[in-house]
Amino acid sequence: MLDCELDAFITRNLSEDIGPGDVTTDAIVPRSLNGKAMIKAKSKLCLSGLDLVARVFDVLAPRTVQVRLLSNDGTVVESGTIVGEVSGSFATLLKGERLALNLLMRLSGIATMTHAAQSALSPGKTRVLDTRKTTPGLRWLEKRAVKHGGGTNHRHHLGDGVLIKDNHIAAAGGSCGEAIRLAKAHAHHLLKIECEIQRVDQIDEAIAAGAHMLLLDNMDDATLQAAIAKVAGRAQTEASGNMTIERLSRIKGFGLDFVSMGALTHSAPAADLSMKIAIAP
Amino acid sequence: MLDCELDAFITRNLSEDIGPGDVTTDAIVPRSLNGKAMIKAKSKLCLSGLDLVARVFDVLAPRTVQVRLLSNDGTVVESGTIVGEVSGSFATLLKGERLALNLLMRLSGIATMTHAAQSALSPGKTRVLDTRKTTPGLRWLEKRAVKHGGGTNHRHHLGDGVLIKDNHIAAAGGSCGEAIRLAKAHAHHLLKIECEIQRVDQIDEAIAAGAHMLLLDNMDDATLQAAIAKVAGRAQTEASGNMTIERLSRIKGFGLDFVSMGALTHSAPAADLSMKIAIAP
Amino acid sequence: MLDCELDAFITRNLSEDIGPGDVTTDAIVPRSLNGKAMIKAKSKLCLSGLDLVARVFDVLAPRTVQVRLLSNDGTVVESGTIVGEVSGSFATLLKGERLALNLLMRLSGIATMTHAAQSALSPGKTRVLDTRKTTPGLRWLEKRAVKHGGGTNHRHHLGDGVLIKDNHIAAAGGSCGEAIRLAKAHAHHLLKIECEIQRVDQIDEAIAAGAHMLLLDNMDDATLQAAIAKVAGRAQTEASGNMTIERLSRIKGFGLDFVSMGALTHSAPAADLSMKIAIAP
Amino acid sequence: MLDCELDAFITRNLSEDIGPGDVTTDAIVPRSLNGKAMIKAKSKLCLSGLDLVARVFDVLAPRTVQVRLLSNDGTVVESGTIVGEVSGSFATLLKGERLALNLLMRLSGIATMTHAAQSALSPGKTRVLDTRKTTPGLRWLEKRAVKHGGGTNHRHHLGDGVLIKDNHIAAAGGSCGEAIRLAKAHAHHLLKIECEIQRVDQIDEAIAAGAHMLLLDNMDDATLQAAIAKVAGRAQTEASGNMTIERLSRIKGFGLDFVSMGALTHSAPAADLSMKIAIAP
Amino acid sequence: MLDCELDAFITRNLSEDIGPGDVTTDAIVPRSLNGKAMIKAKSKLCLSGLDLVARVFDVLAPRTVQVRLLSNDGTVVESGTIVGEVSGSFATLLKGERLALNLLMRLSGIATMTHAAQSALSPGKTRVLDTRKTTPGLRWLEKRAVKHGGGTNHRHHLGDGVLIKDNHIAAAGGSCGEAIRLAKAHAHHLLKIECEIQRVDQIDEAIAAGAHMLLLDNMDDATLQAAIAKVAGRAQTEASGNMTIERLSRIKGFGLDFVSMGALTHSAPAADLSMKIAIAP
Amino acid sequence: MLDCELDAFITRNLSEDIGPGDVTTDAIVPRSLNGKAMIKAKSKLCLSGLDLVARVFDVLAPRTVQVRLLSNDGTVVESGTIVGEVSGSFATLLKGERLALNLLMRLSGIATMTHAAQSALSPGKTRVLDTRKTTPGLRWLEKRAVKHGGGTNHRHHLGDGVLIKDNHIAAAGGSCGEAIRLAKAHAHHLLKIECEIQRVDQIDEAIAAGAHMLLLDNMDDATLQAAIAKVAGRAQTEASGNMTIERLSRIKGFGLDFVSMGALTHSAPAADLSMKIAIAP
Repeated sequence: MLDCELDAFITRNLSEDIGPGDVTTDAIVPRSLNGKAMIKAKSKLCLSGLDLVARVFDVLAPRTVQVRLLSNDGTVVESGTIVGEVSGSFATLLKGERLALNLLMRLSGIATMTHAAQSALSPGKTRVLDTRKTTPGLRWLEKRAVKHGGGTNHRHHLGDGVLIKDNHIAAAGGSCGEAIRLAKAHAHHLLKIECEIQRVDQIDEAIAAGAHMLLLDNMDDATLQAAIAKVAGRAQTEASGNMTIERLSRIKGFGLDFVSMGALTHSAPAADLSMKIAIAP
Repeated sequence: MLDCELDAFITRNLSEDIGPGDVTTDAIVPRSLNGKAMIKAKSKLCLSGLDLVARVFDVLAPRTVQVRLLSNDGTVVESGTIVGEVSGSFATLLKGERLALNLLMRLSGIATMTHAAQSALSPGKTRVLDTRKTTPGLRWLEKRAVKHGGGTNHRHHLGDGVLIKDNHIAAAGGSCGEAIRLAKAHAHHLLKIECEIQRVDQIDEAIAAGAHMLLLDNMDDATLQAAIAKVAGRAQTEASGNMTIERLSRIKGFGLDFVSMGALTHSAPAADLSMKIAIAP
Repeated sequence: MLDCELDAFITRNLSEDIGPGDVTTDAIVPRSLNGKAMIKAKSKLCLSGLDLVARVFDVLAPRTVQVRLLSNDGTVVESGTIVGEVSGSFATLLKGERLALNLLMRLSGIATMTHAAQSALSPGKTRVLDTRKTTPGLRWLEKRAVKHGGGTNHRHHLGDGVLIKDNHIAAAGGSCGEAIRLAKAHAHHLLKIECEIQRVDQIDEAIAAGAHMLLLDNMDDATLQAAIAKVAGRAQTEASGNMTIERLSRIKGFGLDFVSMGALTHSAPAADLSMKIAIAP
Repeated sequence: MLDCELDAFITRNLSEDIGPGDVTTDAIVPRSLNGKAMIKAKSKLCLSGLDLVARVFDVLAPRTVQVRLLSNDGTVVESGTIVGEVSGSFATLLKGERLALNLLMRLSGIATMTHAAQSALSPGKTRVLDTRKTTPGLRWLEKRAVKHGGGTNHRHHLGDGVLIKDNHIAAAGGSCGEAIRLAKAHAHHLLKIECEIQRVDQIDEAIAAGAHMLLLDNMDDATLQAAIAKVAGRAQTEASGNMTIERLSRIKGFGLDFVSMGALTHSAPAADLSMKIAIAP
Repeated sequence: MLDCELDAFITRNLSEDIGPGDVTTDAIVPRSLNGKAMIKAKSKLCLSGLDLVARVFDVLAPRTVQVRLLSNDGTVVESGTIVGEVSGSFATLLKGERLALNLLMRLSGIATMTHAAQSALSPGKTRVLDTRKTTPGLRWLEKRAVKHGGGTNHRHHLGDGVLIKDNHIAAAGGSCGEAIRLAKAHAHHLLKIECEIQRVDQIDEAIAAGAHMLLLDNMDDATLQAAIAKVAGRAQTEASGNMTIERLSRIKGFGLDFVSMGALTHSAPAADLSMKIAIAP
Repeated sequence: MLDCELDAFITRNLSEDIGPGDVTTDAIVPRSLNGKAMIKAKSKLCLSGLDLVARVFDVLAPRTVQVRLLSNDGTVVESGTIVGEVSGSFATLLKGERLALNLLMRLSGIATMTHAAQSALSPGKTRVLDTRKTTPGLRWLEKRAVKHGGGTNHRHHLGDGVLIKDNHIAAAGGSCGEAIRLAKAHAHHLLKIECEIQRVDQIDEAIAAGAHMLLLDNMDDATLQAAIAKVAGRAQTEASGNMTIERLSRIKGFGLDFVSMGALTHSAPAADLSMKIAIAP
């Protein structure tokens, strides 16, 4: 996302939150009043979106507010940590606060859940992946949050990776080998091919047809282990479906390359951060 | 949100998800192949966003896909219920599936949590309210989901309601009465005034100054009851801060008019729905 | 309106006025030539939009033109007053002049008519209100001009205030009480309710149902007085319909809270201002 | 203006007027209720923008409202004439009414003043012209309204006609001849050249340099007549500055080709039209 | 590119070509006049963009013009072939003609050059590739034209394929192996890695580090052959730099997988097509 | 094109080229690494678009890259000339390089062909003109490139000049005189009228009707000379159709005012320029 695209995104969302104007602040807060705000983590969390706080205030009222970041995206901070200070026009602080926090809390929530998931997989080689189950309009920021949390990104959209699912196999007449051959013939030559496997007996066919990676979908632990044994290192493996932090701890020794979790982006609760504003002396 | 604005929102997000093209589907799925998909609730949930499924496919490929809705937004359906059928071009089904589900699952998640919250408050007069802690870009849809779940909307943005918070009171020299007087003088005459109360001893001053509604923020149960007793029906009351479904059951008899919960929109997990596609006979 | 939205508005309108380029200026004016322009009021008027002059030149050619404002929006200036100076690239002055003046003249026209209307109501408590009869695309700026002229804003759009008109009452079966009850049940709790009254005998029903404000539409002076007497301070009152400056003088003692005039924004003639440019020595 | 650009313009302005939603109508008007509205001229006026009424409702809610136009843009109608009927969803009628009328009243106001101006010049060859003193964002529609009123359009923007003003002459060292020569050398070959004349003694120089048209700016009647005599048909003539309907009647015999009036677009009062809605039987 | 994005692209470009209106056509062509146009290839060429002709007229004036396509994108047609007929409003035909032809001629020019390049490589396994040297704003359409011409697409943008160039190697301290290792560690797992090779002695290091494909840049024929021999099938090969149709014929037997040519999109001359319009009988 | 419109154009095209991110550069190039790039002409060429190089890097990453231009648009430089230096963040140089070069090479290609065409017409009064056969989205920049190459611009779009073509004449009943009369009556008074002539016997009629300029389309040399003789200076003349550099040399003495060449913008090959980047010491 280019800086100027990010600014346009922020403009649109400031407008969504402010509407025709902040009637309360405009009525009450003197224009000359200055304030200082502390952004504080209210529980242990992994930060993502701290840089956006600065951009929100910059777009809202360039040069009237200063933002000092005291931590970094990707850092795990303890409850009570002050992660940034914002100082300047009191009215501007009030108008930008909600969007800044809405972004920071949501993205840090994703980073925090990702951090927990990746930790549950350690030690070991298995990496946690995100999915395309992101919030409409926020994919780029949410995938960045997954990286901040120590996770790994899957393809960005339908154009930068081939992922053959059960429906594609059905459309290719039920043969995963045929689907893989069609993909190799038509997709551009810098894209690898991942193929969903629903039964262990599809594995040889998929590998023979040239799949670089296999998606082991919705398998129980035993089937998963059988499938990994069958693959035997001939392709990369990704497991998905009903993954919880608890299950990750259990399967971390199975030898998977990746586990993907839609919940990282569709169900992570917001991280708890606040912005405490005081009148500047 | 106007229909044409909704379509522009969908276009932007289809583009986000599809990128320069669905390389997998374009390589494998024959253009003439048709399919039929069932949208199924995989747990008990309250629907919101079912109408968007139709719009997503309409924007993606007008007239090539038919959507038949079998339920309605706002309805609570049991696990296993088929809530809609989508039939037409198999390739189009695959390209629109993710965005349709991302919207439906997120919005139904919000409706479902709202439904649980409002149920926890029943019987009784207290209504659950949303907040401005919504996902950037989705406020209108998320507030609609709250209504589908049986909740009540708070103001839409900073322009359609006066809500005086602790920071505004500080800016008015620490007096909630003065802040209310400034708001009455400057905000337009069709907006009521809500004022945050942090101590019971502010209540008389706020009511005397003309507040229509009091926000009782971050109070424990005892303080909340004392505050409500002090108000004695002279203004509407809203409680907020650390509200969980459990706490709602506990405070439902206190006589509050409203309880607001940021979690409805910032932390509701996605509802579980799937779209099962089959080749049309 | 956010600063960045205002800049986008100016960009769009510069493009409308300049098209693919100012062929005359590009052909004739040397690039190195500098000039200085005086913006002069050519009749007594109330200023609105003076700040936009600076933004127009800033958007057109950042850093090549300096704008010095010598008065303020909301000030009534005498004919002949120099209200601002613009100096810098002669060519830029010529290219931005028209849009700057089109905005300043239109908005000052509105402020000037509003000032006259509010003056006609003085002394007394009655305030002049604007309406939704604004120029498409300019609502925010025109309502700001009304405030600069000493007027008061009505709701900004259909979302930040309930105003029940005759058609709504008809849709509610002809009963203003029923319409008010529906509005109270469905609109959010920070919005007051205004109800149009066409006959004096509707007043008691409307007040009983909870209307906060009554719109006395298209009544002659006698009926207006009877209606105000009937209301007897139980609700705020707004009169509308066929309001002229002359009539305002006549009704200023009636005890109305508000008079609304569509003409403020749909029929105010442009205020007369000019921009006299000279070659810089 | 392309149809799709016009639709985007309407979308933007519906959004400006409706905001997050029409709270009054949504609360009160049953969705199944239908209505029929008559658009009526409340004084004698020349129509412009009647076609936009249909587009507004089409953009707002495609296929739920039918518009039947009973007159045409450019027609002068008597007070009381029904110029169009709109029937369909009662709620949609209420939501689109304001924008439809705001456009129709403003544009018909321009057409009506133009019609009066052109009539004041008749009989005779002199045509009334518009200027660039249009409302930002509405130039194309306002110039179309001038044509509907029987007027003639001047150039659309700074790119489709050369108009050398006093400032350009100053920039060319004070010589209108030199300015004209520069314009002929640099502007493209399908653009004619008009040159402002402030003194009669500039006329020969301007014509000798190749001006196709002379702008006689801010001259009193006697000077105007002297200037026209001096031109003697060697170039087209346009008079501007302080033109009122009364003055037009006086100068209509002078032999001018054109008179331009900024007031047509910057100061025409809105024409009076109403939209009376009734519940459909 | 989604259909709705394509329509927005066409709208923008119709506006660029038409400006405030087609003054010539509006002045001369009666609105009721209908016409019929034949789109004819004036030399042998490979078609691309024929489908856009229909979209241009559809966006310009929905439902007033019918387009009948008589050939298909990707087809090589002889000089004189009628490839499409457009019938309907004569004025609309004139207004849309230029954009329709500008797109069709440019894209068919690219398809035609691609077809010639791919033909020069036949028989044999070597495929011609496009590059990122496309026209700003037209990448998707130009890459589609390359496919219509029988060519193969390289990555769409910087996000859907890893291509390590000399500058990346320099940034990695001069070692192509190190650069490849960094790319493997950081790029997502469905992207293959291509690495530019400037000297034959880099080949082993690149393959050992895991490059899937080698870009043999700016090599003369002998070096190219030596490089291909060195690779010996261990990675795919792409040659680039100074490729002409003549050279392609010469190197087609070398055993390359791909040859990329920037000229396909940056220097293909427009294909010659005309649109002959006649008045409909 | 306003500066802010140009920046929006660049943003859109950076996004097209970069997509969700430059995976190669992000993986390999250290953020702190700086570089310096030389932009070099690799053949003799006429520059256009050099200023855009600076804007591209400014939009991409404001203040992290410095651009020093060593030549000017419109200058003919020898092969090997360094025309600009870009220094700063190595990663930014890599991300902006392609768009900067795509613009510079395409526009310089147009300027270079224009320069060759105008040179072929010298000495003599005949000027080379561009046409509307430009790349969709780039008209303004391409017409500017024609001026940089020493050519002359024809009208910018359909709104700033009347050009009556054979189809318009057909629509006017086959009479060029009638078409010209209609255009004079309806187009605005600052637009001249050019009329296409297909046979010498139309010339007198066109001139009598008031054409200012005649387009002599698709005539062989002899007919062209006969036509010019017939015109005898009574109108300006433009020849078009099948113009090549060779033919221009041949017809340069015929006395034409203009020759227009679509190839300038639809078929000019890209000029050869490179951007050589080195790590900053």
